[in-house]
Amino acid sequence: MKEVLLKLSSLGEDICAQLERGELPFIDIPSRTTSNIVYDEKEGRFILGGAKTRRNVSNVKHLRSFTQTVWVAWMAKRLIEERRSATLRDLYYMAEAYGVKFKNQQESDSIVTDLEVLLGVPREQLRIFPEERATIYGDLTIRYNLPGYENTKFNLTASPDGIAIGPALAEAEFQDCGAERVIMVESGGMFTRLIEEKGHEKFRALLIHTAGQAPRLARRLAYRLREELGLPIYVFTDGDPWGAHIAMVVISGSANAAHVDNAVIPDARWIGVLPTDIDEYKLPYEKFNEKDWKRLNDLMADPRYQSPFWRGQLKKFEEEGKKSEQQALSIYGLNYVTEKYLPEKLA
Amino acid sequence: MKEVLLKLSSLGEDICAQLERGELPFIDIPSRTTSNIVYDEKEGRFILGGAKTRRNVSNVKHLRSFTQTVWVAWMAKRLIEERRSATLRDLYYMAEAYGVKFKNQQESDSIVTDLEVLLGVPREQLRIFPEERATIYGDLTIRYNLPGYENTKFNLTASPDGIAIGPALAEAEFQDCGAERVIMVESGGMFTRLIEEKGHEKFRALLIHTAGQAPRLARRLAYRLREELGLPIYVFTDGDPWGAHIAMVVISGSANAAHVDNAVIPDARWIGVLPTDIDEYKLPYEKFNEKDWKRLNDLMADPRYQSPFWRGQLKKFEEEGKKSEQQALSIYGLNYVTEKYLPEKLA
Repeated sequence: MKEVLLKLSSLGEDICAQLERGELPFIDIPSRTTSNIVYDEKEGRFILGGAKTRRNVSNVKHLRSFTQTVWVAWMAKRLIEERRSATLRDLYYMAEAYGVKFKNQQESDSIVTDLEVLLGVPREQLRIFPEERATIYGDLTIRYNLPGYENTKFNLTASPDGIAIGPALAEAEFQDCGAERVIMVESGGMFTRLIEEKGHEKFRALLIHTAGQAPRLARRLAYRLREELGLPIYVFTDGDPWGAHIAMVVISGSANAAHVDNAVIPDARWIGVLPTDIDEYKLPYEKFNEKDWKRLNDLMADPRYQSPFWRGQLKKFEEEGKKSEQQALSIYGLNYVTEKYLPEKLA
Repeated sequence: MKEVLLKLSSLGEDICAQLERGELPFIDIPSRTTSNIVYDEKEGRFILGGAKTRRNVSNVKHLRSFTQTVWVAWMAKRLIEERRSATLRDLYYMAEAYGVKFKNQQESDSIVTDLEVLLGVPREQLRIFPEERATIYGDLTIRYNLPGYENTKFNLTASPDGIAIGPALAEAEFQDCGAERVIMVESGGMFTRLIEEKGHEKFRALLIHTAGQAPRLARRLAYRLREELGLPIYVFTDGDPWGAHIAMVVISGSANAAHVDNAVIPDARWIGVLPTDIDEYKLPYEKFNEKDWKRLNDLMADPRYQSPFWRGQLKKFEEEGKKSEQQALSIYGLNYVTEKYLPEKLA
């Protein structure tokens, strides 16, 4: 936190120094244009190249974005000092009160990303969060780094419906862990199913409900569980191109957050529903619709999908044009997933 | 639970008895067609009229829906006996394994609703749940009615990011409550804001994040907090027709679940963002788009909106055509909502 404050201060001091020298100030920000986002094969993720964009007050076209960037930096500093947090949406609204205008939230979100890149600090550390919340359940005892929670240990089986993964949980201290792996689950139905069938005990697993694409806080928590506790991470989604990409973002991060992703888990594994499972487990399926085909084509062109495993899976999708949901496993009974499917998958 | 099992058994026995008498069996189900959904002004909610639909095996057109209804009843009985639960989605998939076909989930959902009406039992008591999850935070100590949780008390401030409201929490035993009211909050950003600004302490409130339209489990929990602990319920949403309707469904229930709604709270109150607040608090606003106007027209025709309070609010929307989000309050600073807006609203 101190380090982030230092970076913010030094950004401000730089600008002040330029002004005091009688110069019109500028900021150099690593460029986020497509041509500067490169796939690092060794790291298995996207990173930013060396190109920079100069935001220069002497250019009247840059004046607006320069001001916006400085304002967001100032607000982030205030948030950190006051131990407050804001959503991306809050930030968009607050700007107006300071006479800093954003056309829409997309514009303010983009400036937040600029600042992440500029400082090399994820927005979570700037105390700026998106709204989505994932949920977790399993035998992990944590302690929150928050005033009032210093002396309280909390086990994540305390509530059988799951615990929301917000900023506090994502950075909580791990005290004690009875689990040996993490299973990230796309749908709420399957998450509840696994709890009910005692999947967390049977597989000694922490279960994370991502509710679709995993929010960065959930990926961050999984990343820390991998790094700090050595737990392997499995991703269990629907058997369609969207599900595949949920797993891929856990594994390689998102292109858009290439610059500061503190949650990339290269050895996380997609365990299903794989397109090959649809035949193998004789699951009910639907045929691809136009959107599915389009999505599949996007993935096939994506550099992250070029390993033999992923090429094979996408090829199977392409040949069959079949998709199947996690909950399609219920066709063989509610405990089929814990008695047969997952034991085989995790073996 | 025993009562529900009895109702299910007696449904089965009725059908068996008809068969044993050599008759083709039928079931009479209260009709859910619009003409039979009537607004009960005294109760301030929708109820079903006396019309019934006969599902008769001697009519080949009814054979399919008769079979589906019996299968869902059989599966509900199994779920209850095995202490399992299923999502509406699970149910749709499971049917296939038993040779019972549904065209799509809409069809299976509709049969579940038929069974609710027929038995007068909400689907939650049949152990069938939707996927959505709301979240709660605040000083309430509960005990879960679940094996393994018998001796554990759990306070809902244990996790600062909130606790998911699933089937277990919605029916948990209330042990001890330090709160004096419930505030249901539409957006996750505002929910986090209120926790961070200690709104739960300041207003002695339990905070429920509905994430849009409140899921029935969240309404059920709020209902029980009203009934069992006497806490008044406030609903705090965006200032637009959609927000108004989130409050209205908490107050009067949804038309679709008229038959069995066990979560109607007639004296719950919409505290904002009211259309009159937009001027009064000088909030940033957007003009209505086409969808907003259409929605407003729907609400104006809805019998639930005919009281002076609601007519006034809708009229204000109509005159101004302005909408404003909860988070627009951030324009005056992050603590404006807890220092100024809510104190005035709750006064």
